[in-house]
Amino acid sequence: MPTYKAPVEEVQFLLNDVFHMERYGNVPGFADASPDVVAAILEEAAKFTEEVLTPLNRSGDQEGCARQPDGCVITPKGFKQAYKQLVEGGWVGISVPAEYGGQGLPATMTMIVNEMLASSNMAFAMYPGLTQGAIAALLRHGSPEQKKTYLPKMTTGEWTGTMNLTEPHCGTDLGLLRTKATPQADGSYKITGTKIFISAGEHDLAENIIHLVLARIEGAPEGTKGISLFVVPKFFVNADGSLGSRNGVMCGSIEHKMGIHANSTCVMNYDGATGWLLGEPHHGLHAMFTMMNEARLAVGMQGLAVSEVAYQNAAIYARERLQGRSISGVKYPDKPADPIIVHPDIRRALMSVKSFNEAARALLLWTALKGDVSHRSADEKERQAADDHMGLLTPVIKGVLTDTGFANTVTAQQVFGGHGYIAENGMEQFVRDGRIAMIYEGANGIQALDLVGRKLGRDGGRAVTAFFKEVSTFVKEHSADDAMKPYVGPLGEALGQLQQATMWFAQNALKKPDNAGAGSTDYMHLFGLVALAYMWAQMAKAAQEKLKAGANGAEERMKAKLVTGKYFMERVLPESAAHLKRIQSGADTMMELPAEAF
Amino acid sequence: MPTYKAPVEEVQFLLNDVFHMERYGNVPGFADASPDVVAAILEEAAKFTEEVLTPLNRSGDQEGCARQPDGCVITPKGFKQAYKQLVEGGWVGISVPAEYGGQGLPATMTMIVNEMLASSNMAFAMYPGLTQGAIAALLRHGSPEQKKTYLPKMTTGEWTGTMNLTEPHCGTDLGLLRTKATPQADGSYKITGTKIFISAGEHDLAENIIHLVLARIEGAPEGTKGISLFVVPKFFVNADGSLGSRNGVMCGSIEHKMGIHANSTCVMNYDGATGWLLGEPHHGLHAMFTMMNEARLAVGMQGLAVSEVAYQNAAIYARERLQGRSISGVKYPDKPADPIIVHPDIRRALMSVKSFNEAARALLLWTALKGDVSHRSADEKERQAADDHMGLLTPVIKGVLTDTGFANTVTAQQVFGGHGYIAENGMEQFVRDGRIAMIYEGANGIQALDLVGRKLGRDGGRAVTAFFKEVSTFVKEHSADDAMKPYVGPLGEALGQLQQATMWFAQNALKKPDNAGAGSTDYMHLFGLVALAYMWAQMAKAAQEKLKAGANGAEERMKAKLVTGKYFMERVLPESAAHLKRIQSGADTMMELPAEAF
Repeated sequence: MPTYKAPVEEVQFLLNDVFHMERYGNVPGFADASPDVVAAILEEAAKFTEEVLTPLNRSGDQEGCARQPDGCVITPKGFKQAYKQLVEGGWVGISVPAEYGGQGLPATMTMIVNEMLASSNMAFAMYPGLTQGAIAALLRHGSPEQKKTYLPKMTTGEWTGTMNLTEPHCGTDLGLLRTKATPQADGSYKITGTKIFISAGEHDLAENIIHLVLARIEGAPEGTKGISLFVVPKFFVNADGSLGSRNGVMCGSIEHKMGIHANSTCVMNYDGATGWLLGEPHHGLHAMFTMMNEARLAVGMQGLAVSEVAYQNAAIYARERLQGRSISGVKYPDKPADPIIVHPDIRRALMSVKSFNEAARALLLWTALKGDVSHRSADEKERQAADDHMGLLTPVIKGVLTDTGFANTVTAQQVFGGHGYIAENGMEQFVRDGRIAMIYEGANGIQALDLVGRKLGRDGGRAVTAFFKEVSTFVKEHSADDAMKPYVGPLGEALGQLQQATMWFAQNALKKPDNAGAGSTDYMHLFGLVALAYMWAQMAKAAQEKLKAGANGAEERMKAKLVTGKYFMERVLPESAAHLKRIQSGADTMMELPAEAF
Repeated sequence: MPTYKAPVEEVQFLLNDVFHMERYGNVPGFADASPDVVAAILEEAAKFTEEVLTPLNRSGDQEGCARQPDGCVITPKGFKQAYKQLVEGGWVGISVPAEYGGQGLPATMTMIVNEMLASSNMAFAMYPGLTQGAIAALLRHGSPEQKKTYLPKMTTGEWTGTMNLTEPHCGTDLGLLRTKATPQADGSYKITGTKIFISAGEHDLAENIIHLVLARIEGAPEGTKGISLFVVPKFFVNADGSLGSRNGVMCGSIEHKMGIHANSTCVMNYDGATGWLLGEPHHGLHAMFTMMNEARLAVGMQGLAVSEVAYQNAAIYARERLQGRSISGVKYPDKPADPIIVHPDIRRALMSVKSFNEAARALLLWTALKGDVSHRSADEKERQAADDHMGLLTPVIKGVLTDTGFANTVTAQQVFGGHGYIAENGMEQFVRDGRIAMIYEGANGIQALDLVGRKLGRDGGRAVTAFFKEVSTFVKEHSADDAMKPYVGPLGEALGQLQQATMWFAQNALKKPDNAGAGSTDYMHLFGLVALAYMWAQMAKAAQEKLKAGANGAEERMKAKLVTGKYFMERVLPESAAHLKRIQSGADTMMELPAEAF
């Protein structure tokens, strides 16, 4: 049975030593996130996820969700009790404004807690995760009355939320959407249609479920410009806040999936269900995308979360499993064999995952902090710069952290040998669970297109120019520092390759847009490598400073940081050159074959 | 529900146009494999696998195997009938010598048929696959009486075989093995111990199961030099060939696994079971390894097989799924959207898998042909050269075809978007099934160590020197040919990197063996890329010659070959430089952290 230890010290190193959270003191909410408050939150979240959610992860996978003949869905044993604890702990609303019952803390804190939730039990974590997405959409686009009606109970977690986009014939291409909304005399709409892949669509954890649904108002234009967003509660809400009768939305069936069995992924049938417009008519896609962008960051986080828990269990196994002898000489002569962590190839596997995870967490936190600035800062210029960063990095984080995060679960499983293939050991569940993150909230190919086709060129390339400038400034500032050379040297080289790739698109993709599409996935990964290497350079700097100042009990951890960062530069980053070469090979060869030749 | 089309034309192109099978006419068995016979076998195998095994793949996964309270195991519905057809078709013994009832055809033919079996139904294919491995061990090491007793019924498939190596505390490190063999007065042994992960260990498909079991004779030396191999039939065989009473070996339980649910992976309890020595006492590991080497090639083939069927289904989906519009302009204005195969990033995914699979099949066939030569040729020098090739390429094929084959199933699944995560569409099963091939028959890290630690240096580097010479000769011979430049140019460059890596080991791994271990996995993949690129260069040459000669209806296929090979050179091969860089970074950084820092 897998175990989990929340990365509390890692997070504190990042917040305090790398990103200096105290510098954000003037951003609303940050004053409340004092070191004491942060420490208390981390400690409690660690306890809840390690002790309550971790033991439910495998049993939840085995049991799965069960739809009853009446359309109700029962979650696995223990989930209701754990969910009650989640609500009582106030974990759903820690970043929701106080006026709706939240704690108003930075969204960064939610990101940190959510990583722990997802590591310990990804399927469980999706119930509050979807709710937080729906809260964000209501906060941004809801009328005062809608906010008052729905937000307080969603903030506590007593009610949960969903996102309803996909239909059987349309996933990525929402322009093909068919779900219909018929205006009623009272200003409401009757919603009719079928939605698929609806996470947490129906379950027994909450009193009510607030569905956000994309539909086309009768007579609206075809394509993406005729789509509106509606709020459709499972139970109507009376004027006094009590629950009324059942709305016309039902779970038609549960999907049989590769993983995340404990999250009920539903086919939802809307049969003249009553809904109310959320935001402007025909602007539903825009409203949904403000929600999607945060959701994409959260999915990137899931990629890290599953990679992290898989890594932890592989490391434990590698320290305990006795098999073979070190080729550099027996290390434990008193034991029948050495633990497999003496073997370089096992270390290669572990170091690859470890050096990725630590940088990925840094990238997430850095971007989450920018997210808080972009939403809360009083300084418009600061807001804009932070928003640029978010827009640029969101597809990178979603795509790279889930692609590589999944690959890492496979690597961690491999450390177990045959035992990794056996369900009881839990490693294969991490692989099955982690796989979905590459797909949902926009498959990773779509993230890559978003990055190359939209984010690079937006506002004359303002965001990417700022990013390049920040990284190259850091490289220059530290290039004469011998201690920093092992980090900024490779970072500078990879940044140069990323700039070359960007230039190549500028020169070759305008005349022939297929050249952008052909290189998009490689570009996303090249960008990710540079961003992660930049995180390592910053972490190395912080570790060196901490060591110089007397690390106060953290010496070994700081030394390990420097080694792990060096590993990343030597062994993970070299992939950058291959990405550049592939990008520069263009689209011609891949587009040459007729469809029937495949 | 996934479909499958056996790659008959591909195989014929390889046998006839690339490897010129007719040149092997003087090797025993090849004369019988006339073009007509080969065509008939391919056609029949295609029919059986496409029509009988493919439809049982998903139902077999869903139902799985069921152990009864009495220890019997029931295979999924339809498996018994399909297995009967397999036996009636004589598929198990096509390469077994005629004196034991086989057809005596080249083992290459078995490899070709087995790919089709594994593509259509990997779990099913393992039953005859394990039997073929046990047949090989009996042929090589059995006494005349043992051969007479077991081989005829195993050749037909009426009896199946197993390999029993792993114990709970020992997988890779067989020196730790504890299963005990106590000599009896009649020359037999009583075998006692527990074996785990025994594929096809118990089932209802065959009348008898012949277990090959590693055990330690009482008083034998510790470690790997005290291990012997035993043959332990499930039912004793009477002198007249009829079945006698039940032996003391039972299935204790079935493992719950990530995939290959329809193959019964058993915990086998040997409780004073009667066994007979197979080969010399204390030389069991050697005997098992002659069997293992062929099994490793067969596992590499599984990597390709699953990659192939996953690719086929992804290609079909990409041609049919309508979603979005081509960025180079609408391609199907009469449809609500273009098929997703118009999008470059979808083509990137498909071409990556396609260009790998076609070269992987070539590499397998080339090596299988060498295997036939190594076993059957009358010329000792030819035998030795072929055996060198087999020894060198076996770990490469096992490791690279299963690592990349698995990654390819993930890529193919990704083409389906959310539908790839849903069990009914079958793509997630390919991922779960294909995963095991990276693990069993020696986890891929062990393959890499075998290559770097044993195969490179063996006989003064004779095998690797010959391989380098063959490839560089081909490059030189075609470097002035403009049509061949796109192939031999990149091949020559990658070969140079592989030679540099080999040199680096020679200079750095003798003093510090950890440097070999640290670079082994990258070296294996670098070697694989060069070998696959060499296959592409040969296929390109063959396709160009065929086109020049008038391809006789195969023009489009031959043109597609040239494009697909070019894609491999432009987009897959560039990884070689990253492998070299990682190898040259050595072991120091990864060995630096203390075990507790992980």
